[in-house]
Amino acid sequence: MIYWIVAFGANINTLPEIILPFMPHILLLGAGRSATVLISYLFSQAAVLGWRVTVADLTVNHLSLPDSPLLRAIPLNIEDENLLTEQVQTADLVISMLPAQFHLVIARLCLKHKKNLLTASYITPELAELHQAAQAAGLLFLMEAGLDPGLDHLSAMALLNNIRQEGGQVISFKSFTGGLISPESDNNPWHYKFTWNPRNVVLAGQGVAKYLENGRYKFIPYHQLFNRTERLTILTLGQFDGYANRNALLYQERYGLQDVQTLMRGTLRRSGYCQAWHLLVQLGLTDDGYRLPESQILTYRQFLESYLPPTPQDWLTRVACYLNIPAGNAALALLEWLDFPAEPIGLNQATPAQVLEKLLLQKWALQPQDKDMVVMQHLVTYTLNGEKKERTSSLVVLGDDQQKTAMAKTVGLPLGMAAKLILQGKINLTGVVIPTQPAFYEPILAELKTYGISFTEVERNS
Amino acid sequence: MIYWIVAFGANINTLPEIILPFMPHILLLGAGRSATVLISYLFSQAAVLGWRVTVADLTVNHLSLPDSPLLRAIPLNIEDENLLTEQVQTADLVISMLPAQFHLVIARLCLKHKKNLLTASYITPELAELHQAAQAAGLLFLMEAGLDPGLDHLSAMALLNNIRQEGGQVISFKSFTGGLISPESDNNPWHYKFTWNPRNVVLAGQGVAKYLENGRYKFIPYHQLFNRTERLTILTLGQFDGYANRNALLYQERYGLQDVQTLMRGTLRRSGYCQAWHLLVQLGLTDDGYRLPESQILTYRQFLESYLPPTPQDWLTRVACYLNIPAGNAALALLEWLDFPAEPIGLNQATPAQVLEKLLLQKWALQPQDKDMVVMQHLVTYTLNGEKKERTSSLVVLGDDQQKTAMAKTVGLPLGMAAKLILQGKINLTGVVIPTQPAFYEPILAELKTYGISFTEVERNS
Repeated sequence: MIYWIVAFGANINTLPEIILPFMPHILLLGAGRSATVLISYLFSQAAVLGWRVTVADLTVNHLSLPDSPLLRAIPLNIEDENLLTEQVQTADLVISMLPAQFHLVIARLCLKHKKNLLTASYITPELAELHQAAQAAGLLFLMEAGLDPGLDHLSAMALLNNIRQEGGQVISFKSFTGGLISPESDNNPWHYKFTWNPRNVVLAGQGVAKYLENGRYKFIPYHQLFNRTERLTILTLGQFDGYANRNALLYQERYGLQDVQTLMRGTLRRSGYCQAWHLLVQLGLTDDGYRLPESQILTYRQFLESYLPPTPQDWLTRVACYLNIPAGNAALALLEWLDFPAEPIGLNQATPAQVLEKLLLQKWALQPQDKDMVVMQHLVTYTLNGEKKERTSSLVVLGDDQQKTAMAKTVGLPLGMAAKLILQGKINLTGVVIPTQPAFYEPILAELKTYGISFTEVERNS
Repeated sequence: MIYWIVAFGANINTLPEIILPFMPHILLLGAGRSATVLISYLFSQAAVLGWRVTVADLTVNHLSLPDSPLLRAIPLNIEDENLLTEQVQTADLVISMLPAQFHLVIARLCLKHKKNLLTASYITPELAELHQAAQAAGLLFLMEAGLDPGLDHLSAMALLNNIRQEGGQVISFKSFTGGLISPESDNNPWHYKFTWNPRNVVLAGQGVAKYLENGRYKFIPYHQLFNRTERLTILTLGQFDGYANRNALLYQERYGLQDVQTLMRGTLRRSGYCQAWHLLVQLGLTDDGYRLPESQILTYRQFLESYLPPTPQDWLTRVACYLNIPAGNAALALLEWLDFPAEPIGLNQATPAQVLEKLLLQKWALQPQDKDMVVMQHLVTYTLNGEKKERTSSLVVLGDDQQKTAMAKTVGLPLGMAAKLILQGKINLTGVVIPTQPAFYEPILAELKTYGISFTEVERNS
């Protein structure tokens, strides 16, 4: 592969066409809401660094493409294997912002046609199996390079390596991230609106959470997850609740924390959310595993009724009684606000999770003037010269508007910057990897600062 | 196919060898603990009716085979496709007592070689897909012909059809079955011992329970299942708790209950069991979906610790606190009795459910002198001449000894009797079906009475 770093600057649009095939070419699959900032970043870098960029998705009409021979948007159905193959073949680097279930197919295609791959999704066991084949082919499949996972890895490794370089011995590491609503737009009792894929929010946490606490493995079944939160304070924003996220044990080796006593990754919500969401989980409303008979003629209230024991009180009292919640509990008020109206769901053969998602789409819709917020906090306990210390590293990013959301910025910019490093030949890695190396986190965290995305560290003796 | 009903009586053992290939041949796959009574039944019927019977399982050394040219036991690994095919080809009827996961493969083999099939397992969606092919081939794949499912269908249909013939209109039908310990052997606080596959007991109820109540669909998620019991009284045995079992909605059409308001199938436990089992489910100890790291060096106590929040009290107080159970609650005493000892589990890469099963195998082991008990109760509400009535039909079967258990009798005899009806050409059915027809339930319920297995009906106005 030849990486031409062409520094034509402002004259990029006057490039002779004959040069184009020799310029590094990025294929971005997926142009949804969370890709807006990534696309802007790639386009602006393309002009400066002389990349070609092709954005492909089912529909690309919504993209405002600068007039440049370097930039292209094409309609592509990911299931159209011929067109997908054709596009992958012309690329030097494939970035996928598609839903995670497509990444195995894309990764296999990249392996076949010897292309590097970049995504913001978790390494699945199936993707991990491609590691040796990718290494043998000299390819880099960089996964988990968005926000969470992504920016959490970058900032965690910077923090941990700093402490190690100072001579500290890390005892405990916890890391929490949340995609939330900014304080100025926070006007419902859940303190939450959909700033990200609603389906993923409804299904969040399904499976079992695994982590390490005081040297012991810990497991939280899904039906207890939102009942097992811990309270965090982030800078001046006040309190948040964190619940454990997936399998943190995987990161013990990846973060070089083999000797750590506590290792946890979690997701942040505003106080109150988890207690109320726990009730929805307990009722069984988040199940995506079966379809409701006659869901097209049910109302939301009848849907709720299907999960309650048949006693004569009002529905809220019955929920409280069934789930052993004292009357007047704050979580009940959040359920009451959802209302479960006597209006038809209007979904055919829906799963419980799909019905709940449809109700929440009405209740938690982002309004045009609303701004979102991304928060992240790492909490490290370590010993240095026999003293026990705590250091937190916190991030708050507010959205600018409905396009440049905090989510789109914090997912897209790390991805775009990682793409730049790869195309510039600055990354000496192959295989299926995540961005934990200084070669990633040093330049990316530095460049993120220029976008106003920077972490605040606070240290105290404990 | 030729069915020779040979009535040689006591002289069966002196049959000329040349006749053997012309005698109906039953292949029984699976000779485990629950097959003992079925094997005895088939052997005794073989002598009278002139069947050949081949019993095949991984090991068959434990079988005491009467000296007869009609009876044969062969070692067979179900995964040895060649030997399995060879055996199926020689059979007229295949009975499978193997674990349910093997039945799809066996059914496909029976379809290929045009053999009838008989099992005590549920019709899965995959098996249901073979219905038309089996019909086209003129084959009968009779499923759900053991105890539960099996004897429940036979006795339910007899009861329901009697009420209908009397002019009654069924409003509500509920049916509960339990495989328990007989009162004389009931000497632990769970009132339970393993009289059946322990793994199935630990995993019982996983998935979502579906039923109909007062004209509405009802769903109970697994993590609430053991918290949603109803109290039943069975004859002179006192009280039991029933929890909902699988998808009862499937039986609305199968039982001809399209107009019913309430339809539920359930499983019975002695009072106290469900409340305590609910705690194990809430903790997450019945999960079979992931493997515990380092399970070979964990103790049962450490295993339990992995599911508890880290507070300083004793483990029982922490369970109570975590699950919001008042101290002194009876269910806690049942957990305390399990003890979760500080001894090594000694299982490699075990799932939580496997660890729990191993602990329970010590605690709930059937002792040599123990006898088991099977209980069943159908509860029907119906209207007759404008009056609302209730009729219950109850069954209690006690085990004779460790061989002739109540479970082995109630699973094996219906299967054996159904096999007889099929071989006698008395069943005019094809396809993948369950035994709901008078052609099954009339002769089988009558013959079961001669074995002391009979239902007691009680009727009252409600």
